[in-house]
Amino acid sequence: MARNPRYDVLFEPVRIGPKLAKNRFFQVPHASGMTNANPRVRAAFRGMKAEGGWGVVSTGACSVDPSSDDSPFPNATLWDEADIRAHALMCDAVHDHGALAAVELWHGGAAAVNRTTRAAPLSPSGVPWMATHVGFMSSARPKVMDAGDIRDLIRWHAEAAVRAEQAGFDILYVYAGMGYLPYQFLMSDYNHRTDAYGGSVRNRVRLVEELIDAVREATHGRCAVALRMSMQELRGRPSEVAESEGHEVVGYLKDAPDLFDVKMDYSATDCAASRYTAEGSHAPFVDFMKSVTDKPVVGVGRFTSPDTMVSMIRKGVLDFIGGARPSIADPFLPTKISEGREEDIRECIGCNMCISSWHDGVFVRCTQNPTAGEEWRRGWHPEIVKRDAEGEALVVGGGPAGLEAALTLARRGFRVSVAEAKREFGGRLLWETALPGLRQWYRVADYRLGQLRKMPNVSLFAESPLTAAEVKEFGADHVVVATGARWLTDLCGPNELPHGWAGGPRVYSPDDLAAGVVPEGPVAVFDFDNYYLGTAIAEALADRGLAVSYVTTAGAASAWGFMTNEQPLVHQSFAKKGIAQHPLQIVAGFDGEVVTLAQIMSGAPSEIAARSLVVVGTRAGGSALYEELVAARGGNGSVHLTGDALAPGAIVHAVYQGHKTARLVGAGPDRPRRDAAFLPADVEALA
Amino acid sequence: MARNPRYDVLFEPVRIGPKLAKNRFFQVPHASGMTNANPRVRAAFRGMKAEGGWGVVSTGACSVDPSSDDSPFPNATLWDEADIRAHALMCDAVHDHGALAAVELWHGGAAAVNRTTRAAPLSPSGVPWMATHVGFMSSARPKVMDAGDIRDLIRWHAEAAVRAEQAGFDILYVYAGMGYLPYQFLMSDYNHRTDAYGGSVRNRVRLVEELIDAVREATHGRCAVALRMSMQELRGRPSEVAESEGHEVVGYLKDAPDLFDVKMDYSATDCAASRYTAEGSHAPFVDFMKSVTDKPVVGVGRFTSPDTMVSMIRKGVLDFIGGARPSIADPFLPTKISEGREEDIRECIGCNMCISSWHDGVFVRCTQNPTAGEEWRRGWHPEIVKRDAEGEALVVGGGPAGLEAALTLARRGFRVSVAEAKREFGGRLLWETALPGLRQWYRVADYRLGQLRKMPNVSLFAESPLTAAEVKEFGADHVVVATGARWLTDLCGPNELPHGWAGGPRVYSPDDLAAGVVPEGPVAVFDFDNYYLGTAIAEALADRGLAVSYVTTAGAASAWGFMTNEQPLVHQSFAKKGIAQHPLQIVAGFDGEVVTLAQIMSGAPSEIAARSLVVVGTRAGGSALYEELVAARGGNGSVHLTGDALAPGAIVHAVYQGHKTARLVGAGPDRPRRDAAFLPADVEALA
Repeated sequence: MARNPRYDVLFEPVRIGPKLAKNRFFQVPHASGMTNANPRVRAAFRGMKAEGGWGVVSTGACSVDPSSDDSPFPNATLWDEADIRAHALMCDAVHDHGALAAVELWHGGAAAVNRTTRAAPLSPSGVPWMATHVGFMSSARPKVMDAGDIRDLIRWHAEAAVRAEQAGFDILYVYAGMGYLPYQFLMSDYNHRTDAYGGSVRNRVRLVEELIDAVREATHGRCAVALRMSMQELRGRPSEVAESEGHEVVGYLKDAPDLFDVKMDYSATDCAASRYTAEGSHAPFVDFMKSVTDKPVVGVGRFTSPDTMVSMIRKGVLDFIGGARPSIADPFLPTKISEGREEDIRECIGCNMCISSWHDGVFVRCTQNPTAGEEWRRGWHPEIVKRDAEGEALVVGGGPAGLEAALTLARRGFRVSVAEAKREFGGRLLWETALPGLRQWYRVADYRLGQLRKMPNVSLFAESPLTAAEVKEFGADHVVVATGARWLTDLCGPNELPHGWAGGPRVYSPDDLAAGVVPEGPVAVFDFDNYYLGTAIAEALADRGLAVSYVTTAGAASAWGFMTNEQPLVHQSFAKKGIAQHPLQIVAGFDGEVVTLAQIMSGAPSEIAARSLVVVGTRAGGSALYEELVAARGGNGSVHLTGDALAPGAIVHAVYQGHKTARLVGAGPDRPRRDAAFLPADVEALA
Repeated sequence: MARNPRYDVLFEPVRIGPKLAKNRFFQVPHASGMTNANPRVRAAFRGMKAEGGWGVVSTGACSVDPSSDDSPFPNATLWDEADIRAHALMCDAVHDHGALAAVELWHGGAAAVNRTTRAAPLSPSGVPWMATHVGFMSSARPKVMDAGDIRDLIRWHAEAAVRAEQAGFDILYVYAGMGYLPYQFLMSDYNHRTDAYGGSVRNRVRLVEELIDAVREATHGRCAVALRMSMQELRGRPSEVAESEGHEVVGYLKDAPDLFDVKMDYSATDCAASRYTAEGSHAPFVDFMKSVTDKPVVGVGRFTSPDTMVSMIRKGVLDFIGGARPSIADPFLPTKISEGREEDIRECIGCNMCISSWHDGVFVRCTQNPTAGEEWRRGWHPEIVKRDAEGEALVVGGGPAGLEAALTLARRGFRVSVAEAKREFGGRLLWETALPGLRQWYRVADYRLGQLRKMPNVSLFAESPLTAAEVKEFGADHVVVATGARWLTDLCGPNELPHGWAGGPRVYSPDDLAAGVVPEGPVAVFDFDNYYLGTAIAEALADRGLAVSYVTTAGAASAWGFMTNEQPLVHQSFAKKGIAQHPLQIVAGFDGEVVTLAQIMSGAPSEIAARSLVVVGTRAGGSALYEELVAARGGNGSVHLTGDALAPGAIVHAVYQGHKTARLVGAGPDRPRRDAAFLPADVEALA
């Protein structure tokens, strides 16, 4: 198809200092969970975005010196020759598709507590980041940088810049955002210095300026230099000489870098969950940039709509459309717009499973794109599936796993039928995405249904519950059972294990609510699942005017929601809706009037009044249909259990299992490759 | 010196099936944070214990298959040829010193949620572990293992056993403890199966029995087979045919393995912090073993006293003295007992910084032994320091960092003087170890003072505060300033950054309490340090009869104490002492009567009554003396800032910095080596 001319502006080449980007699609630096221990995994992951049409593809944070070590949170390094070899793989993969490669040079300062290198953390004035999330906490506080430390920091950037150019990078970032060291110099909260680097805004900007100069000089102007800054706080603070400290800072720096990359300051606002935050949320904080500088500006905002992208350019907010999450969900987003195939875009749902992966310390995972992180390990491509199969496949169940399995089976060449018992496809998504804030998650079904409906080798059957006999009669070569899981009303013990119980009157599971039960108030919601569903249900019940108490085994509502950046917003919503929290509690009993609680660690008892109890705890998978089919198999082709029916999980796991099952049907066993770091020369010499 | 004949029994050789251990010192499997990505770091760390005299040295948990992936928590793997090469390094290092090498074959089942390999987790009956600690939480639940999965599990163990023997291991563990998969089969909480592997105790034992057989057969009886079991729950559960399920289980298995390794079930009881738990705490749970089986038994209990060790043997509780933490704190513990140098033992203090390292996902760190994990990276040996220096060194400050620096400088050959301002040495330890439960931590000073007092080139000066002029006059070639940090009464903002404030009446820091202030009750303790000190102070104040409210920015009291396994015991102690908790709060103000709180995420306000406020938040390092000395240096030798004065931290950081500073005085820069995994053959072929 032809490109919509309205979108031509997105495909204009744009100059970034000495380099020319082929279009305006800019994969800004974002965490991938891939370090120098996984250079091939990383190169394939980043290279895929270049293949998909992004004009610039960046690394994640890349440490310039062992005094910036974020372990166990994954960060790349640019410390030595072995690291150059590792990054060169990525640069080659990106250049192979005509894109520019960018590296985010990074020093974490007080936020990087060097758990592995064990260097004393650095900071402008000894002000630590007092993380309240246990995973980020440390018992180490930073040292106050002296003049020698500042000279070292500048030298480390220059040396890392030289190594970056050797690796093949085109654009070198100075990173003054997200609480990291150059940001700490910019912000009066961290910077109490009385030397030339502290005090006035002019002084606080000095270090960033010197870092930019050092990086530029180290590569003699051959590489472009980008500055990444967080604007949320600076823009909100008054300046004596400009509209805000943000304006003042950018004013001093307006000619220094070849590109500005602007963002927010905190995870929950920067990489904001769609549950509470809409597309384009950064704009009010960064829209002044082009009034102060002539340099090109890139910014993000979970952009998936080409019309929104064009408007950002036309309105003069941005020159480049930055993408992090949308580039993971669909590496081929630019190509699809370029080819007039907007309806094929696999839109980011804003669930933030990707950033949870970094918080979890592992490779990036994406609900929409199950191939993310598997490009090299398993040879999975997000768009191109080898047509290696024929025959008939029947998928039973049209939820996330079933639809993904069907799509991948169809791409492999199978004739695919999908049988869904309900009137609508979507499975668990149907009810869950009707809960407050979760509407965009329905894109998981939307995308797959859109693709499946275009394929000649796919038939979709709604209102088609199947018995084992009917499946057998259908006669498919391969049957994939993806019938989902059911919620239990089991409670949880102080040893963190679920257990059954007699129950009381008016005890409900999420499945009961999905089936239309409206609990009698006041309601207690006991959440030991601790991801989104418990708090979303509490919000939905409060929205109906019911008095809601929220009980959790964890230390706070939406405990795992920390990982997806939604937790603070859940707490704000709870405060607004008057939902009471009872953390660190297990439910010991319920008689229809009183919920008996016990503190999970001490056993200390308490009570809350409630007429109904909703338990959001564990789920049971399994499938009687699958068991019958296996028992009756007798050479009638293969039978597979997948998704929540195999192992209940978040939607990301269901989609992944569905994809993996489809890849393996009638094919060999799963044999992922394992990556390894390049060996430093001094170690190699020992071997 | 000669060995005390009372301890001869500890040095008797003991047979373990086909192998002979040279003595009874058995470094049981424990986490090191070192995976197949760090084979040289790991080999040197484990090899050091063999050098120090341990008769058996084990790995940590070593996954038998990608379906058991504990990432980001570090675990070793035995999946392929590259892993064999990695483990062979350790086996060689252990054998070089005449010790046996043991490997803990491991499958985590429902506790290993495969964040990197993305396999569906396995479990007997689909019962998940509903971890309340966010770092362990997952949105993936396990699948129910079918008959094929059980066959696979047995096969994986057999295949891993073959690889283990190829790597050189002498003893192969089957691991049925600590909530992992074979344990899940043993326990009715997890195992609801109705096949031959579930129901009766006899059936639940079946899998473990088959795993032992498979491992033995795979190596044709050439390797010894050990069984590691958790006994806390099983011993507490009644059996129809024996004194407890524990007795019944061991009865069925009594002839199956060549060795039993017995322990507790939960981190907080198994690897119990000295703050609440004494040496030898496992004995009541494991003392029955030898009445049921004739096989040798190893157990742990943070044993550092040779008399206690001997009594464990004489009483017939254990055949081997298991060591994990004591072997980290002092790899040379056996040698020191053997040589009659018991007073040289660097005794474990039970702070559990080691296990926190695993929870943190990084290399093991030890408060007492700063060389742990640095054996290969930096070439540090815990006992042997190269005598490479001469001249005079002055250490100012006799706390943890100063004493460690002095000891290491003295070992290097410097003539060392330590000047301590107070009457007693120990610095912060003096007051902190007088708080409830922390007495054993004083061993940090005790050990170092004991060593320093024996050295002819060391002079200790108490009650000796020094001015810059006096230091200059002293004329040392090198000056190390280790004067510690001071606590601030700064508050904490909702952005997790500390900030100053005007304060109210009766606002105290820990330093004020250390100086003898007794706050007026009721007292509010505001803890945003979130390690041990805030809760220890709250306990101490409650012990004095004061009404105490504990306020924290985190989700629970002793938030970071989760990492050191002390958190649940803190909560039990709080419940007993009536200390009220106010989690997820910041202190917004205090007027001497009322503490104003704000929920850290939503800002929702509340109040508590208090006449005093103790703030346990941040510390300031730095040293005016150091600044003066640097300013006045002028060729008068080197000046170094170290310990809390350089960068405030836990005692582990202070000792480490003191050690590192001493290693670098007058020597080259710090150039640690970086390790890398062996490359799998299929990847090597690509290169």
